[in-house]
This record gives sequence, C-alpha cells and structure tokens, in this order.
Amino acid sequence: MSRVYNFSAGPAILPLDVLKQAQEELVDYKGCGMSLLEVSHRGKEYDAVHQEAVANVTKLMGLPEDYSVLFLQGGASGQFAMVPMNLLGEGQVADYANSGAWASKAIKEAKIVGKVNVVADTSKALPTRVPQPEDLKLTPGAAYVHITSNETISGAQWKTFPTTEAPLVADMSSDMLSRPFDAKQFGLIYAGAQKNLGPAGVVLVVMKKDLAERVSDKVPVYYRYKTHLEENSLYNTPPCYSIYILMLVTRWLLKLGGVEAIAKINREKAGRLYAAIDATPFYRGTAEPSCRSDMNVTFRLPSEPLEETFIKEASAQGFKGLKGHRAVGGIRASIYNAFPAEGVDALVSFMKEFEKRNG
Amino acid sequence: MSRVYNFSAGPAILPLDVLKQAQEELVDYKGCGMSLLEVSHRGKEYDAVHQEAVANVTKLMGLPEDYSVLFLQGGASGQFAMVPMNLLGEGQVADYANSGAWASKAIKEAKIVGKVNVVADTSKALPTRVPQPEDLKLTPGAAYVHITSNETISGAQWKTFPTTEAPLVADMSSDMLSRPFDAKQFGLIYAGAQKNLGPAGVVLVVMKKDLAERVSDKVPVYYRYKTHLEENSLYNTPPCYSIYILMLVTRWLLKLGGVEAIAKINREKAGRLYAAIDATPFYRGTAEPSCRSDMNVTFRLPSEPLEETFIKEASAQGFKGLKGHRAVGGIRASIYNAFPAEGVDALVSFMKEFEKRNG
Repeated sequence: MSRVYNFSAGPAILPLDVLKQAQEELVDYKGCGMSLLEVSHRGKEYDAVHQEAVANVTKLMGLPEDYSVLFLQGGASGQFAMVPMNLLGEGQVADYANSGAWASKAIKEAKIVGKVNVVADTSKALPTRVPQPEDLKLTPGAAYVHITSNETISGAQWKTFPTTEAPLVADMSSDMLSRPFDAKQFGLIYAGAQKNLGPAGVVLVVMKKDLAERVSDKVPVYYRYKTHLEENSLYNTPPCYSIYILMLVTRWLLKLGGVEAIAKINREKAGRLYAAIDATPFYRGTAEPSCRSDMNVTFRLPSEPLEETFIKEASAQGFKGLKGHRAVGGIRASIYNAFPAEGVDALVSFMKEFEKRNG
Repeated sequence: MSRVYNFSAGPAILPLDVLKQAQEELVDYKGCGMSLLEVSHRGKEYDAVHQEAVANVTKLMGLPEDYSVLFLQGGASGQFAMVPMNLLGEGQVADYANSGAWASKAIKEAKIVGKVNVVADTSKALPTRVPQPEDLKLTPGAAYVHITSNETISGAQWKTFPTTEAPLVADMSSDMLSRPFDAKQFGLIYAGAQKNLGPAGVVLVVMKKDLAERVSDKVPVYYRYKTHLEENSLYNTPPCYSIYILMLVTRWLLKLGGVEAIAKINREKAGRLYAAIDATPFYRGTAEPSCRSDMNVTFRLPSEPLEETFIKEASAQGFKGLKGHRAVGGIRASIYNAFPAEGVDALVSFMKEFEKRNG
C-alpha cells in the first residue's frame, strides 16, 4: 500500500493507526460475532463506544459539569438551521459575524428563522480575514452571537475569541480540537466531524445545558437540542459507525497529549508552509498574516494556468486535494490534526522545485 | 471468527460478504492511497459510490423518471418532521393511519407542524394489527396520506397498500426493499437504512419530484427536499461511508435477483418461524395472522419469567437480540433481508428444545 498526502478540506485525512484498527475490527468487533456496523445502538458493544466518545471530548475540551456533548446528524449545515430554531425567540435578534462563505450560509439560514443583525462583515475582504473581537458592533440583549472560528474556504481564522454578554455560538467545523481555548466562553459550539474529528455523518455539538430550555414548543421534537440532551444523543438511532471512528480519533488525540500538544504540532506545520510562501514572491498567501489559518493554508501562484499546472503535477506526485474551493480558485493545503509533518515538508520541497522550473 | 445469529431490530445484520469487502477496502480504497472514510465527497472515488447507490435503488424499485432517490441524515425520526414541514401547507390537513408506536411518533411530530386527521387507529389493538385499506376514513383534499408499512415493535405489516387521491407517504424503515410493490402508488417513501439497507446514519428518501416544489420559503433551506433534490444529495457533505455500505448491500441484493427473489426468501423464513409458533400453544404470535410481519416476528411465552429464561438461554447459545422492545416485552425475532435461513432453522430447533424442557 502506498499512502498519498491527502490535503482534502473535508472529508479529510484520518490517523493511519485509527484506520488500521477500524479495519481489524470491522467484521468481528472485539470477538462479539458481529460488526459494529450491525450491532444494536442499545447493546453493550455500542454503549461503551458512545460513552467513551462523550468522555474523550469532555476531557479534551476540559468541559465543566454544566456542559453537554451531543452527537447529531445533518452536519454544520443542519446546525445553521437548528441554532436559530432553538435559540432565537420571537421578537429577539441574533448577532452574526460574517467572515466568509460559511458564515454567510449560517446567516442566510438564520434569516429564514428570525431576525439577524450582521455585526461585522469581512466576507469580501482581500487579503481574506476575519473580524477582530473589537470590531463587533453587538446588539444589546441579543439572543446570541454567532461566529465561524475558521473559514475553510478563505483560510482565515479567529485567533482571539470575543467575550460577549449574550451566549457565544461558534461553527468550529474546521478547527475543532486543533487548539486550546476556554469552552466556558461559549454557549454552544458545533463542528461537522469530517475535518478534525472523524468521518462525515456526525456533527459534534457542545453546549451549556440551560440553553436547551429556550426552545419553543412549535419546533419539531427532533430538531430540539433538549430532546437529544435528555437522551444522551440516543433519542433515535445515532450514526454509530461515524461516532465509533470519532471515538478512536479522540482516543488517538488524548494519547498524543491532547489539544495543547496538537496545537504545537499544528502551528509548526502551518509555520513551515507559510514560511515557504513568504520566502518568494512566486507564491502569495491569500489571508491577512494576522488571521492565517493553521488548518487551511491558502495561496496563489502568478497565474491561473500556472496554478492548474501546479495542481496537476502535485497530484501526479501524490499530493491530493490541493485545488482551492471552486468559489475562489487558487491553492488550498488543508493540514488538519491528522496530517503528517513529513507531508508538509514534502510539499515545501515540491513548491521549491516547481518554482525553479516555472519561476 | 464465530458469527452469532443477530436478530437485532436495527441496527441489524448485514451480509457477511459486504462486511468482508468493506474490511478489505477500508485502509486503501481501490488502490487510491486513501480510505473511503477520508476522501472528498466531490472526488471521483466517492462520486462512483454515490452514483451506483442511486442507480441500484432506482433499479431495485423500478422507479420511473419522475422519481428521485435521496440520501439524507437524521433517520426516520428526522423524516417525521421533514414530511409535514415540506408537504403540509397552512390551512391543509394531513391524513395519518395510526398503526402503532412508530406511526404515533410520526403523528406527534406532524401535529406540531400542522393539522392532522387520524384516519384509522389500531395502535392499541391486541393481537397487534395494522388498518386495512378500506378502514381509512380519508379527508377530501388532504395534503397527503401517511402510513407505516411495517410496525417494527408490534410485528404487524401492511399486506396491501391503499390507493389514495392525495399523495401516499410511507415510513418503510423496517421493510424497504424486502418485497415488490408499485412505487408509482406512492408520493414519498422514507426508510432509515439500519434495517434492510445498510448501517445507521443515512435515511433513504424516494419521492415524486414535483412534490418537492410544495415547500414554503419559511422552511430552513437545509430541511427542504428541494435543496437536496437539486444537488443530488450533495448540498452538503453526505454520510459517505453509510452510503457506501448501502451501495454494497443494494449491489448484493441485485446479484441475488432483486426484491422478487428476496421476498420469496423472506416469506419462507418467516413462514417457518410462524409455523413453529402455531404448532404449539406454548408459543403465541403477537400479531393478527393476516398482518404478520415477514421482518419482525413477535411472540409470547406462557409467562414473563419464562420469556426471560428463553432470552437468556438463547443468547448463551448465540441467538442475539431476541428481546422484545422495552415498550411491549415478549420475544421479537427480526429477520431482515440479510438474515440467513439457517439462523431461522436453528432458532426453530432451539424453540422446540426449550419447550420440551419448560412446557
């Protein structure tokens, strides 16, 4: 087997050890005579997986007792709707910071549900960037304040989170568990698993329990956080296998030393790539240096035809998924937690060699 | 490896060949150097899986051009809300047949969204049964008529589907692709995959395309069928791995001869089990004989303590998941498409032997 360097923005690379263990356990899970793909979600085999997944996330984030960990379905796109359906009451206003493509989608959905105030907008900025905490013109008495911690498409990331009176809600899909922060600063955090946490099919929600009480009885039972919180995400059949892989990934992260340890590795990996970009005018970083994402490194070449050649030649050499999002073009190297440092070094060598031939 | 007989009601047994192939392909999918758990949902590896899954369902059901196959998230419980949110307009009435626990849940959710007329109610009947088509007191001009084709908990199944003027909507979670029927009789069908189709984490929706146009613009974009129909279920990241297993299961079913072939096998399996139940007063079938499910065979023993002993001894001999749902007790043998005939024969032998010792 020859493993490629998978720079895909999501679904994204998983730790090889996790894949090997999943493979070994696939047909006969721990000698129970069944696959984890076919056991009851109320049986003891899956129950242990579910409990460990909750415990791992709780430990990695250092969550206090008044927070809950939920595993839901529908991805971050589903959460764009669920958040306002649960937290935005009639006559209230929700504050949203528009930092790019994903924040815009969250705003669009919230506007269908209720009243939205866009408290900062950097969505059209070039170089790409996110707002600074002090830029937010918050609404007094807002139902909540919503931010997107890392814009996967533009490659811009919040480095400091705002302190808000209203509950702070964050879409952390593309940088969840990639760096330490104080969870108590947030009312609700959600993250599609398929970047830093596991495969597609499960969205992690971490929330202050009392926020679940806000929901109106006009919201369908299934779309209430309260429903899932009261049943420990077992109101109906959860996406068991995706949660199993998430459990293995979070176990791997704990063994590695947790979010402090991975943050150091992530900073080093991103640092080496940004250094290679800054070393020559041939490459241009897309994001404002103060907002550069440690997860999605975006950059341009002198021309679009050169970018096409770059992506094509890179792919032939085993660097996959480097094409920027179809909305913006350019190059994007997504280097999530599980992406190996040697893959970054290999890409840096390729970039130098490519410039020599085309610069 | 010693494989047990998995009678779980869902998640449920999968074909062993499917599990073996999934295991073989897990770390390195078809030599691409990545796992299918980590490839982009917009890349060529997943694209082929997605297209084949849609094609297999289309072929197995014999769907005409004006029907679409969708792969969504949130299970049947999510569909309990999505159906009325999309199809039940203001001032309209939706007709629901209440055949048991699952239909009741669908009704509860629909009542939050709009006006519901319960057109037949067998939910409290004993022996358990579903309504007959001629029992339905349909509302003229109803938005749609909703039925639950097979009640997983009570073990009662519709044998003939009603012909309705309003679009017929069915929750077929526990008997989808287990028997042939005319899809054109239905406006929309949904089925959580974790019984007959694959693992948990994906819900199959088959719908007449024009019904997707009914939705009000007050419904969040993510909860509109229209959104997913226009994007071939790729509006956001789909639950790729669950869809991959569903693709393998439907491919297995096509090789086996399709739904006509499996229906014959299913009738034979269920027939042998019901014959064993009817052969002695020691066992009593729970469902009215005319409504007996070919998927979930429910029965009682002379006393609850004997039922407990039965379940315990059966489990020790490798018959797993025979305990009836916690809401009703008794015994339930779920024998979905992938459940092997020899497992039914082995259970019948165990039942005879158990009666000898305890009758």
